Amino acid sequence: MNEQKNSPLSRRAVIKGSLATGAFWATQGLLSSDVAAAGQPVVEKIKNATILFQGDSITDAGRNRRNKGPNNAGAFGRGYPFLLASYLLAKYPKEQLKIFNRGISGNKVPDLDKRWQADCIDIKPDVLSILIGVNDIWHKLNGRYKGTVESYEEGFNALLSRTKEALPKTKLVICEPFVLRCGAINDKWFPEFTQRKEAAKRVAQKAGAIWVPFQEAFDEGVKSAPPKYWAGDGVHPSMAGHALMAKTWIEAVKV
Amino acid sequence: MNEQKNSPLSRRAVIKGSLATGAFWATQGLLSSDVAAAGQPVVEKIKNATILFQGDSITDAGRNRRNKGPNNAGAFGRGYPFLLASYLLAKYPKEQLKIFNRGISGNKVPDLDKRWQADCIDIKPDVLSILIGVNDIWHKLNGRYKGTVESYEEGFNALLSRTKEALPKTKLVICEPFVLRCGAINDKWFPEFTQRKEAAKRVAQKAGAIWVPFQEAFDEGVKSAPPKYWAGDGVHPSMAGHALMAKTWIEAVKV
Repeated sequence: MNEQKNSPLSRRAVIKGSLATGAFWATQGLLSSDVAAAGQPVVEKIKNATILFQGDSITDAGRNRRNKGPNNAGAFGRGYPFLLASYLLAKYPKEQLKIFNRGISGNKVPDLDKRWQADCIDIKPDVLSILIGVNDIWHKLNGRYKGTVESYEEGFNALLSRTKEALPKTKLVICEPFVLRCGAINDKWFPEFTQRKEAAKRVAQKAGAIWVPFQEAFDEGVKSAPPKYWAGDGVHPSMAGHALMAKTWIEAVKV
Repeated sequence: MNEQKNSPLSRRAVIKGSLATGAFWATQGLLSSDVAAAGQPVVEKIKNATILFQGDSITDAGRNRRNKGPNNAGAFGRGYPFLLASYLLAKYPKEQLKIFNRGISGNKVPDLDKRWQADCIDIKPDVLSILIGVNDIWHKLNGRYKGTVESYEEGFNALLSRTKEALPKTKLVICEPFVLRCGAINDKWFPEFTQRKEAAKRVAQKAGAIWVPFQEAFDEGVKSAPPKYWAGDGVHPSMAGHALMAKTWIEAVKV
């Protein structure tokens, strides 16, 4: 496709794209009203873009993994990727977006690495969003895994280096791992979980990725409702939690 | 609950409720930017409200029917009720909303009538949204049903009379049956389908219900993408189609 007119790859292009027909689409989805009002139509910036959501059970969200096709509700599960894909597909009916969810429950960084060729590189995403890290500590606390904060950061860096080498134009979006203080989350998670979030942020900065501050969003959310309202077990978001994630993702990719 | 302060039952209350913290929630969901900007926080208007989505497969959208609880992703399927419930639960974390989806694939008006006590009246919704009608003609065209436009209107009127008698304070939202000109939809559907849409609108007006103009929304949508983009078989919406429905629903309940 024409890089000048149609490339979805620059952050600016994504930002501009998200402003398209903003005043109208503020009624649809996840644009802030000020941005909507300021927006100019430049939707051709994301024409033919492929968008891929990668991660663990939070991204998987109960999707039908046999369904490999793009833009298919059954393949998206019931989480933030479904909310975001529905919004984007309704917002850009002319742009022939191809949106995929390849999150798999229980995954840690090494699990993504094992399936990365088929489940990321072969898909050739123009925008790649990754949320990974909660199982890297959870399974360790359960005695099922021995990874450290350091091996998490090294493995995550290596995954992104491999990605940038294969897909140099792909816009990377790294999502902050998060937990809520309820359910499975207890004091044993800290301070290591905080250290892992800090590691994820360093990985994002090193890769020049957009950072999506999910933990900050939930920390704000618990001022209005108890942690279990947003995620019953402290890890897997409720419908309200996934909607808050979708909002946070769009705001981060926009800003 | 206090009818003066907490009633979700008047249309004005729903409208006002939807304006709560509008400028913020325009970034989340389905408020138009002008309404968002105009909004004043009056969320106590919908405190403890129960919202019920009723209909056929378009509303069912693959939900887990064994899951009867409110606010549960598995119980919502992958359609406009999931998008709307996720948005509303994230928008009103303090209001203890209870949202249910009881759509069932293949249902016609007589099917709703058979299960109405358990699947509507016993739930005591404060806001009841109904989308029903496409199977009433589809099954007739397939030779599996003999209902007429007249029996559809009479049955729909009777269902709402029964509802208003049992639940006099419930705010009714009637959704326009719609089709797109692709897939299973051919000329045999017309003019009867148009007559049935007109009947549904008369039913809504007679009941004093809010009318959600889904057909108008899709007629606008097909100016930007082919009918199959919004609903592959002309009846069951894609992710884009369900997102367009969610937007249209919120705009109608707001206006």
